[in-house]
This record gives sequence, C-alpha cells and structure tokens, in this order.
Amino acid sequence: MPRPIITLLTDFGLRDTYVGQMKGTLLAQCPDAVLVDLTHEIPPQSVLSGALHLGAAWASFPEQTVHLAVVDPGVGTTRRQLVIHYRGHYFVLPDNGLISAVLEGAVPNRVVEIRVEPAQRSTVSSTFHGRDVFAPAAGRIAAGWSLDDLGEPVDVASIRRLDLPCAWRDGDVIGGEIILIDGFGNCITNIQRSMLPECGSATVRFGDLTLERISTTYQDVAAGMPLALISSMNTLELAVRDGSAADRFNLSVGVGVEVVIEQSKREPEWNPRLVD
Amino acid sequence: MPRPIITLLTDFGLRDTYVGQMKGTLLAQCPDAVLVDLTHEIPPQSVLSGALHLGAAWASFPEQTVHLAVVDPGVGTTRRQLVIHYRGHYFVLPDNGLISAVLEGAVPNRVVEIRVEPAQRSTVSSTFHGRDVFAPAAGRIAAGWSLDDLGEPVDVASIRRLDLPCAWRDGDVIGGEIILIDGFGNCITNIQRSMLPECGSATVRFGDLTLERISTTYQDVAAGMPLALISSMNTLELAVRDGSAADRFNLSVGVGVEVVIEQSKREPEWNPRLVD
Amino acid sequence: MPRPIITLLTDFGLRDTYVGQMKGTLLAQCPDAVLVDLTHEIPPQSVLSGALHLGAAWASFPEQTVHLAVVDPGVGTTRRQLVIHYRGHYFVLPDNGLISAVLEGAVPNRVVEIRVEPAQRSTVSSTFHGRDVFAPAAGRIAAGWSLDDLGEPVDVASIRRLDLPCAWRDGDVIGGEIILIDGFGNCITNIQRSMLPECGSATVRFGDLTLERISTTYQDVAAGMPLALISSMNTLELAVRDGSAADRFNLSVGVGVEVVIEQSKREPEWNPRLVD
Repeated sequence: MPRPIITLLTDFGLRDTYVGQMKGTLLAQCPDAVLVDLTHEIPPQSVLSGALHLGAAWASFPEQTVHLAVVDPGVGTTRRQLVIHYRGHYFVLPDNGLISAVLEGAVPNRVVEIRVEPAQRSTVSSTFHGRDVFAPAAGRIAAGWSLDDLGEPVDVASIRRLDLPCAWRDGDVIGGEIILIDGFGNCITNIQRSMLPECGSATVRFGDLTLERISTTYQDVAAGMPLALISSMNTLELAVRDGSAADRFNLSVGVGVEVVIEQSKREPEWNPRLVD
Repeated sequence: MPRPIITLLTDFGLRDTYVGQMKGTLLAQCPDAVLVDLTHEIPPQSVLSGALHLGAAWASFPEQTVHLAVVDPGVGTTRRQLVIHYRGHYFVLPDNGLISAVLEGAVPNRVVEIRVEPAQRSTVSSTFHGRDVFAPAAGRIAAGWSLDDLGEPVDVASIRRLDLPCAWRDGDVIGGEIILIDGFGNCITNIQRSMLPECGSATVRFGDLTLERISTTYQDVAAGMPLALISSMNTLELAVRDGSAADRFNLSVGVGVEVVIEQSKREPEWNPRLVD
Repeated sequence: MPRPIITLLTDFGLRDTYVGQMKGTLLAQCPDAVLVDLTHEIPPQSVLSGALHLGAAWASFPEQTVHLAVVDPGVGTTRRQLVIHYRGHYFVLPDNGLISAVLEGAVPNRVVEIRVEPAQRSTVSSTFHGRDVFAPAAGRIAAGWSLDDLGEPVDVASIRRLDLPCAWRDGDVIGGEIILIDGFGNCITNIQRSMLPECGSATVRFGDLTLERISTTYQDVAAGMPLALISSMNTLELAVRDGSAADRFNLSVGVGVEVVIEQSKREPEWNPRLVD
C-alpha cells in the first residue's frame, strides 16, 4: 500500500518555523505520510491567490492525496473549518473560498466541519489553527480516519466560493484577464485552451501590444520578444522569451486580454485545398 | 516502528545546495529518515535567532525526533560539537548557545561531544561541519546508534547558554521585549501567557502606543488596527489585523513592552455580582 | 532495500507550485521515493549556474540516486531530453550542458534519449517538460525501470557540454576565477585544492586586495577581515569572517583570482631545521 501523501499550501513563508510545526503535528498523527510543499509564498492573507495556486497544482497528485491549505485571515473566528472530498482527493482548509478554483463550479462529493473536542480546546491557540486544527485533521485522514469521525456533515452547497474572474466569448472576440504571474514573469490568463482556435489563427491584445498569432513554444520568437502561447495550466499565457513579460510590459494580475479569432485568415491557411 | 524524524534548522538559506548536501549525508546514514525543514532563513550567524526559532518549534515533534541545528560562526575552531538528549528529543548542534531556548534553564538528560575518528578527519572540511560532522552524527542517531558510540560524555552543566532576555514582574507591572518578528510582521514577546491576567484586564504599552486590552483573536479589532493577543508560542504578541505590526509601528527585536494589570477595572468587569 | 532517492534542482523558485506539481508526478510514478530539494533558486535560465550547483551537490548522495535537473530555456524545442548514467547515479535533464560540472570532462557510462510515446504527446505541455517529460522519466527510474525501457541509446560522446572556466598554472603562478557566490557572500573559485601548496605558503590576489596566506578556518582572522581558505567543494574560497566577501569587495562571478606560490618563504617556515 503506498504511503499517504499530504500537500501543504500556506501564506506562512519559509522564514519562520510555522510550516515545520505543522509538519511535526502531521507526522505525529501519521508517521508514514509523505509531505510535499506546494508553496508557502502565497501573499499574506490573499485567499484568491491561494485558491488559484491550489487549483493549478492539486491535479498533479494521485487520488487519495490530502491537500492541507491554510490562508486564513479569519483564524480564531467562527468561519468553518472543513474537509472537502472531491474527485478522490481530500482538501482540509478554512471555509473562506480557498477551494474555489479546485471545484471550478462543481459540487464536491462530501463536506464535513472539523470537530474540535472540548478536551482539545485548551491547547488550540487562537492564532495558529494550521497547526492546532487543520494539521491534526489532515494527519488523521492520511492515517485512515473516516470523515464521519472527524466532524459533522455539512451541506455541500453551503461552502463559500470566491467570484473567480471568468473569460467570455462574443462572436469572434474572447475576453479574459491575467490571473497569475509566475516567478519567471510569465502571465497566466483565465482563457482556457478549449476556447481558443488552433495555434496561429488569432490576434492577442493586451495594453498597447498586439501579437499576431498564438505560438507553440517560447522558441517561436527571438530572445527578448513577446509571445502568447498555451500555459502548463492549459490556458493562454503571455510571455517574453528568455525574459519577464510582467516586467517588460508592466503587467499585473487583473490586466485584461483580448483574443480576436481571425476567420478570414484561418481558412486559407488551414485548408488551402478548399479555397482553390 | 515509525520512521525516524530528523528536523533541520540552519542559516544556510535555500539558494545554495548546502541543505541538500546535508540531506544526502543524512540519507546515506539513515535511508529511512523523514527529513523536515524547520527553517533555513536564520539571519547569517545569528545564534540567538536560531536558538529562539528552535525553541519555538521542537515541541511540535514527537519524542525520539533528532533536531539538527547549524548556526555556527565558530565552524572549524575548537567550539565543541554536541548531541544533547532532553525530554526524549536529540539535539545535534555546536556548543555555542543554540540549545538555550529549548532548555529554558533546565538541565539536559545527557550530553556527548561528537567524536571525529582520525580516519575521517581528512574528509572533514574546515568550513562545512553541518555536512561533515553534524549530519553524520544526526543520521547515526536516527539509524539507532547509541550516544556512547557517538562520542564522549560531557558534563551537562558545562554547555554554553545565551543570556536570553527575561520578562519581569513588579507588582501590577510586567516588562518584556520583542524577541521574534515573523513573516507577517507579528511581534512575539518574551512575556509568557502564565504571567498575564485573563484577556481584557490589562493595558499594553510599547513605544507611544497603548492598547487597552489583551484581545482573543485578530478579528477583535477592525482591519488595519493594532492589538495584543496570545501568540501560538503562548506568549504576548503585538499584531495589526490584516497587516504588519512591525512595519506599521517600526518595531524591531529588542523593543520593550510593558503590561499593566488593571486590578481596579478587573473585578467589576469579571464578577459584577460581587460588586453589587 | 532502501527507498529510492530523487533530488530536484531547478530555476523555478518556490513562489509557484511548479516544484510541487513535479513532485506529484514523481510520487505518482514512484510512491516510495524520497524527494530532496537541492535548490530551486538557480537564476532563471542560467544553465551555467545550474551546472555548477549540480556539480557541487550530487556526490553527497549515495549511489543509485536519481538527480532531476531542469534549467531549460529550450523547453518545447528539439533539444534532447536525456538520462545520463554516471558513477552509479542517474541524471535526468535537458541536453544543454547542465551535466557539465558533474562529468568534469569524463565520459558517462550510458546515455539514453527519453522517448515520449505518441499516446502521451497530447498531454505534454510545450512549456513544462519538467512535469510532463523529465519527472515521469525520473520517477520511472526510481521505480526500477531499466534505461532500455525509457528511450533510445545515445552516443555518450554526443552530449552537449559547457565551456566551464578552467584554472591554469604557469610556474609559481596559478590563475582562476570566482565561479559561485553563496548566500553568505563567500566566493568559491575554480582553483582546486590539489593545485595549491599547503596552507600558508602562498599569496592570493583579487582586484586590489592581496592576502598573504591561505588560512585554515574563518577564525584565523579577526571579525570583518578577509581571508582565503579551502571551501567545502575543495576549491579556493575568498571570504570575510562573519561577513560577506562579495558585498565588502564588490566581487561577482567571473572575477579573476591569482595565487603566487611563495617558494622562498615556504622552506624556512616549514622546515627550519634544514635551513640551519
């Protein structure tokens, strides 16, 4: 039987020992667990950024993985503490919308609210539920506890969701925005690959810049030149070859992007026999 | 039998491969070990900061955990290289005070000085005892070696300790200072929860700022407002809700904090029936 | 049988979940693997820096370790994707010179080009072969696949190598340069220990500064003073005790260093009896 996997995503950073303290708690509950950091560099208390990164990463893991995600500005208040079971994965997190990009509008299979036993309460700090509430629950799931033993069922429709920015399509025009900028300065948008025509047959506009095609790889343009291509998240990405698109064009999350599908260009290029 | 846990705390940072090299050495000695980073972002050669972070984190781990801690400005000199056994945990570190906040004045159960065999000496670098002396010792403890086989016993009273700043109490006044600032800008003081009255019945002063109570959670004040509350280390913490207290009030480690217990206020509030 | 070890070295940084996504893929292929980060802070797309760090770290791991290294400005183009078997270790990386400092001019035992099956191709992104090509291959080696099953053999002499800067010796003068600056600001040169006389009998010059000897430990000089000594990579290192040589003397990678062996000084000091 493979060892249980627990991933961790937080806004704690790596300067302090907070992540280490959570891992000690996880291993105390489940000594066999394999612990994998997704990232701990979510901007402090940015639930939206945490949600998008969790949405980008979870599906790279096998079923039965437990994802512990703590970006929790409401720590110590009455916001609920949940375990969400969805497509074979477990998500242990506050009920503040952090699950939103995982679900993408779908309904989870099951949700329970984590119960803190009265006997435990005196040892639960009011500032660090990551260590004192979420990590014990995640470790117990990894150790084989059933959801029933962790807490009370919650209406699956009641969980909180963020309004994630949606791409739209109107005739030949698709609109979206930059939702993530990675460490290379690549700008990931919310325009899904499935909304786009095949490579090459579209114009991409953001700010003052127009790109005449959607490229296949970074090497389709010369070093230092901008391009649009499909990201590893299967969405439209704006990049600069061997450089940072964010720095070069002063782009930030929320900047709008427009794609115009070039019908007139498309057919002669793609099906030249039909034209002749 | 659970796999042995080894934690790592250093000032090496994550830019270089030094931490990775130590882990290779640990796994060569003990292939079954679970390796957990506490932090590698201790400010270069700050033994005091390393001691405080180690003191904050070790107790989150189960007994038998081996804690490898290397903040070692004296590398290559005659400062001793120790294994300290205390409350079921093993600490492998230089004898420069790094253990101080773990012990908090207590005496360890046992201390040995790590022996470097003559045959080994030619392969021990003079700049990286983390990899060449401490990691082999930590890996061997995890692999089940006894302390006797690692080196010579040392007088438990002889180990070096830092003068950690102590909080004091004089009547209704408690004095302390900021000892750690975390990545959120929360300022952790050395005033233990046990020295404080129950929440609400005290005035907290630092710099020009006075807080009229000790709060329970960050949400007790409006966004952007300062508060004092109990930290996850069970000490008094100064914070700004959804913000950084350190940035907002220009606080740094060593800044003094004063708590005045409000006896006159306390009783009417807490036991109103006794007053009437 | 010990669990297989897979190390990871990339220029992805830790802000995004890219490293986490690779680890999910590795664990899906090989649930027993122990994953160890070497570093993810290679400057973006700096193959040379990646090569030097990989060269510094790999030998700290036991034989059979799989080293997954992705610094890959050519992702999505026709640069080859290799598994290199050398001295009992496996290296999974793009054929862009990243292996250079591991081999140091030697010829590997065996090289295969990773085969991407036609059925797989639709799920391979054009921007993230770390996750979609290299991690599956690394996971499979760890899980026991033979190289034959991973791809086609490649001529071991055909792999790409960087021109790593070489130190030279001309009579009593040795020349080299700074090749790595670590997080402490220590400057590691490419002058091997084996090229140097025993400590003390040489003059070291870089920029305007002259050091009259090669020291044994950082403590041979007063705090804040510069020194030259042997690094943990067994090469000449320039350092400042309790400080940063790079900041203090404005040193960067590529700065030249000259060592003059002092024959005249050496003998009287070392063998005073022979002189009398």
